[in-house]
Amino acid sequence: MPKQNAYDILFEPVVIGPVTAKNRFYQVPHACGMGHLRPNAHAAMRGVKAEGGWAVVSTEEAEIHPSSDLSPYSEQRIWDERDIPALQLMTDSVHQHGALAAIELVHNGHHAPNLFSRLPALAPSSMSLDISYPRQARAMSKRDIAEFRRWHRTAARNAKTAGFDIVYAYAGHKMSLLHHFLLPQYNQRSDEYGGSIENRVRLAREVLEETREEIGDSCAVAFRFAVDELAGTDGMQALEEGRAVVELLAELPDLWDVNVAGWDNDSQTTRFQPQDGYQVPYIDWVKQVTQKPVVGVNRTSSPDLMLSLVKRGVLDFIGAARPSIADPFLPNKIHEDRIDEIRECIGCNICASCDSMGVPIRCTQNPTMGEEWRRRWHPEIISPKVSDSPALVVGAGPAGLECALQLARRGYPVTLAEASSQLGGRVLGESGLKGLSAWLRVRDNRAYELERMANLEIFLESRLSAEDILEFEFANVFIATGSTWRRDGIGRSRRQAIPGIDRENTLTPDDIMNGITLPNGPIVVYDDDQCYMGGVIADHLSALGHDIVLVTSASVVSPWTAYTLEQARVQRGLIEQGVEIRANESVTLVEPGQIETACVFSGRKSRIPCGSLVLVTERDSENTVATALAKLRDDAPGKIIETLEVIGDALAPGLIADAVYSGHLAARNFEVDPQEITAAIYRREMPSLQDLTWEKPSN
Amino acid sequence: MPKQNAYDILFEPVVIGPVTAKNRFYQVPHACGMGHLRPNAHAAMRGVKAEGGWAVVSTEEAEIHPSSDLSPYSEQRIWDERDIPALQLMTDSVHQHGALAAIELVHNGHHAPNLFSRLPALAPSSMSLDISYPRQARAMSKRDIAEFRRWHRTAARNAKTAGFDIVYAYAGHKMSLLHHFLLPQYNQRSDEYGGSIENRVRLAREVLEETREEIGDSCAVAFRFAVDELAGTDGMQALEEGRAVVELLAELPDLWDVNVAGWDNDSQTTRFQPQDGYQVPYIDWVKQVTQKPVVGVNRTSSPDLMLSLVKRGVLDFIGAARPSIADPFLPNKIHEDRIDEIRECIGCNICASCDSMGVPIRCTQNPTMGEEWRRRWHPEIISPKVSDSPALVVGAGPAGLECALQLARRGYPVTLAEASSQLGGRVLGESGLKGLSAWLRVRDNRAYELERMANLEIFLESRLSAEDILEFEFANVFIATGSTWRRDGIGRSRRQAIPGIDRENTLTPDDIMNGITLPNGPIVVYDDDQCYMGGVIADHLSALGHDIVLVTSASVVSPWTAYTLEQARVQRGLIEQGVEIRANESVTLVEPGQIETACVFSGRKSRIPCGSLVLVTERDSENTVATALAKLRDDAPGKIIETLEVIGDALAPGLIADAVYSGHLAARNFEVDPQEITAAIYRREMPSLQDLTWEKPSN
Repeated sequence: MPKQNAYDILFEPVVIGPVTAKNRFYQVPHACGMGHLRPNAHAAMRGVKAEGGWAVVSTEEAEIHPSSDLSPYSEQRIWDERDIPALQLMTDSVHQHGALAAIELVHNGHHAPNLFSRLPALAPSSMSLDISYPRQARAMSKRDIAEFRRWHRTAARNAKTAGFDIVYAYAGHKMSLLHHFLLPQYNQRSDEYGGSIENRVRLAREVLEETREEIGDSCAVAFRFAVDELAGTDGMQALEEGRAVVELLAELPDLWDVNVAGWDNDSQTTRFQPQDGYQVPYIDWVKQVTQKPVVGVNRTSSPDLMLSLVKRGVLDFIGAARPSIADPFLPNKIHEDRIDEIRECIGCNICASCDSMGVPIRCTQNPTMGEEWRRRWHPEIISPKVSDSPALVVGAGPAGLECALQLARRGYPVTLAEASSQLGGRVLGESGLKGLSAWLRVRDNRAYELERMANLEIFLESRLSAEDILEFEFANVFIATGSTWRRDGIGRSRRQAIPGIDRENTLTPDDIMNGITLPNGPIVVYDDDQCYMGGVIADHLSALGHDIVLVTSASVVSPWTAYTLEQARVQRGLIEQGVEIRANESVTLVEPGQIETACVFSGRKSRIPCGSLVLVTERDSENTVATALAKLRDDAPGKIIETLEVIGDALAPGLIADAVYSGHLAARNFEVDPQEITAAIYRREMPSLQDLTWEKPSN
Repeated sequence: MPKQNAYDILFEPVVIGPVTAKNRFYQVPHACGMGHLRPNAHAAMRGVKAEGGWAVVSTEEAEIHPSSDLSPYSEQRIWDERDIPALQLMTDSVHQHGALAAIELVHNGHHAPNLFSRLPALAPSSMSLDISYPRQARAMSKRDIAEFRRWHRTAARNAKTAGFDIVYAYAGHKMSLLHHFLLPQYNQRSDEYGGSIENRVRLAREVLEETREEIGDSCAVAFRFAVDELAGTDGMQALEEGRAVVELLAELPDLWDVNVAGWDNDSQTTRFQPQDGYQVPYIDWVKQVTQKPVVGVNRTSSPDLMLSLVKRGVLDFIGAARPSIADPFLPNKIHEDRIDEIRECIGCNICASCDSMGVPIRCTQNPTMGEEWRRRWHPEIISPKVSDSPALVVGAGPAGLECALQLARRGYPVTLAEASSQLGGRVLGESGLKGLSAWLRVRDNRAYELERMANLEIFLESRLSAEDILEFEFANVFIATGSTWRRDGIGRSRRQAIPGIDRENTLTPDDIMNGITLPNGPIVVYDDDQCYMGGVIADHLSALGHDIVLVTSASVVSPWTAYTLEQARVQRGLIEQGVEIRANESVTLVEPGQIETACVFSGRKSRIPCGSLVLVTERDSENTVATALAKLRDDAPGKIIETLEVIGDALAPGLIADAVYSGHLAARNFEVDPQEITAAIYRREMPSLQDLTWEKPSN
């Protein structure tokens, strides 16, 4: 355990132009799926970060004009003055806790399809939109460039009015016009905005100068810039043009926020990039080029790594998106010497998947994330017990662990019974698969907390039957017995068992996670689940040295992983390992030594040799105990059971994040006024019904 | 030309339970991408339909409970009483024109991922969600079924309060719980709600009875039911269980709204189903089974087909979604003997694509669709000219035709100059490709209208240079010169020409549309556009008898066509015609007789024999004249040109719908106060900032 003040350097104030951050913890701009549609939820979520000790709390990207319209995705908007009140909700909630509020202004160029505004998309040169939509962006004229600069300036002024302390210009993630102008593949202009790096940097320079001119008296101007595209000579490289850009603009912004592009490179998962601080080699030179403070991200919750980065002169600010999502109170916990209480990001990108899908952010480790306004949940505070009624939690997977932990935090006497010899449930199994070891943190964090609870007892190797439970006379029972993968082939493509299936000899992910010895013969992994498990199992078995054929009813391997920014890496990895991928095929028949598949489009049949078939199709909730218990209770209503709640995968199989949330919800709702529970289910933000009359912007 | 009263039968009033429709034109529920996020836009759009003569105007599906949460898609919501005011905007606007307002109540079951509400999804039996998301629905308990019925009843009551005249129960499109209970593949229950058809129909019966009980005194109860899944014996069939359902519930609803499932079968495009009235064979028996009025859809704008359907006793109401989108005034035009003025739906499903993408509806034929509130556009009314200044429109493609037509309607003297010998531009070319002939209606409708304009002159075979235009001394010039497909290989995958490309001998869709004779040798169509054209060209050439290899950088053929509900048909068709599909490959090198491709995931190279290469990659705006004219104007500012506006693909290549819209917009905005134009660009619906406190529903 380090001394109380070992990390004091992380809590030094740092000057950023005209403002001062109270410490070095900096929540960089990150998407959250709330945006302009959910201003109350957004303000509450960012406010909790400020409360947790982050010195700077930023918005997600904020569209500056209707020609940067990301509909249906809901990012922030600062199209005109009417957006100020919503943004002010956020700056107020951030300021309330002594933090600085930052806004990331953006024009998304050809990344914005303008499906609501219907304005032509803009780009340095004419090109396709970067979504598959039959519409192209037009090459910006000089007049367009002047207009863009005017919009950016107006947005900066409105941002200042809304109370922001830091205003970003944004050239990152290949998602913004300022970035597109920097990159030769997008910028093929022959005028003074194209060609040489000096010309390509011109627009960023102008915008930075004008932003400073407009609001620099009281607001800091930050520049977010992706120094490297991780594409070798096919893209910008940190030590080539990346460095040239920083040199050319070195002292122009008040702060450099540096990372790598695109988003899938910036926000890599632990599955493909287990190393925290993986961006350091790309950005460790920036402070040598500029006198201005530098922030970078590292997906780390380790105070020692943070300390080292500051001491080594790599960074002035510890930037974070995901670690601040997993634990909004990370800075305070370091400050208060409660490092072991930090909920560490597992790098699963469920957070990113929510923005990819256009819905509010969720987090595997932090079930309160995104629920600050809707459910009034606080990550560190939970309401105390209202009785001394004891609770039994059956099953110590993610739902059971979380439920037991939160019930114990509320002060209830809790018994946690687990059939196996270890805590973790599916987390234990899945974290044993290739690439997923960091997922074990879901268990480890909770196990650590549970150990410290005086009012909680854990019983391992304690498989309970319904009769056992009745016998123990627990009034309140939470069933978290999880789920198992089906062995009959029922999945997305078919609602009936695959003909010929031999359930005895068919394998599932559960078998693989249990370390079953695979028979020889060609192994076929059949993915009709289409989420992440099919690709993981193929990858895992291939790495163990097996020849694998992956048959999937989807068009790509694990299509859902596109939302977690992983899909291309999943498929590339399998191809490089020699896994044979057969997409668009469903299994229609199992025979000795072979299977029959059908093309999902044409129905055309093929036969594939198959010694072992691993089915990744769908899961069955394990609810034997719950069903029996409910029956016993109903048959003899005099019995003691008052609460019988099925949670997690036992209720409905889902993500680990869903299971944690389900356990958390059950614990929060225990012995709470049903009205309050219902209220939260219906709470949402709704449009104003006024037929708004547009008012002329002042510029 | 028929007699004025030939269609009188279509204008007879029809009784629906306790309400009466003034005629037989019935806008069935259809998605519009407006929903609960855009209540003003929704009310305005539906109101225009009522004004146009539809006797019944329906909402899209309306979620009845947070466990049917379609976020991020914005359909209607009637979760609780707080939704009433927004819905009332719609019923008011519909009633204002003497029409009945209908609402389609829905619980989406496992079609609803509940990504906002986070409630477990519900289904008759446990199963995967019907999106690729790692979450499953739980099998509904008896208690769940009772709750669902209570929610439906409450929603019906709230719908009545909101002013609806017709309240739907909805068992269609495989998107609703009531439908899922009917279908054996989803319903594997062993209780009284599963098994026999009598059991599977039980829930629908209960809901219909309860809805009538709740609101049947003053509102009609409609039942929307998909009689056939178009899957043969693998699904429900019209003359088997489809008929049994109608027989079992025959007189229970006040109205039967019958169609086929899923949405891709109900809303087929003209590309794959050219025949209007294609659903008739599936529904023509329904009126023999029930005494209640029957509505069905036919994607038709033909009054003669409508008349025949009523006279033959197939339908009581002419249901319409797409024809009412293409022409909201269709009923009035028939009534007023203005049949030739009907803007006929081309069956392209751009309307559906908008809902698929979660943005407000647009229409190729009707550029005012979805703009009734935002831009205050009316499909039949346009503001008159403010001067007599003459206008020249250069180019008679979709943008030029629409611009010229609307300028002429405003009363301006208009000259339309077209370089070729025919009107239509790209519409002419594309409608010559396999499956797209109905698209020619975009031209035909406008050509008909233009012919009748006294203040418009058309010059064919009149290619104008910038100098010509100056010489003619037009003060106002609209340039609609379109775009051409690139010959260099620049597209989504690469921003530089493909090495080795031979621009002389490389073909593009323009060549195919121009009917070029293809040389022998293997033909490779390379689709790096990923929208619709690649699949269309391969289909067209294959149908001409050529052996085709389709190389695409996407994972499936024409991925964008998933939004228009066509993708599976596109790929199936090509496979069945023997087209070889190579997905996930981009072309990296062209050599004599062969091309080199690279796997988009791994970069692995392949070589493919290639005699002729057809590139479907990206388009170049044709703006030579516009550029030259702008230069001449700027060089000699004394010249007469006051307005120089580039529109349509010449400004930025897009959909035909985008070009029509662009031409319409330019005509509407001509000589209009710039403030008004800007106002429309910024107009939008925004959330209320109140931290809404939930109020207990009365039930």
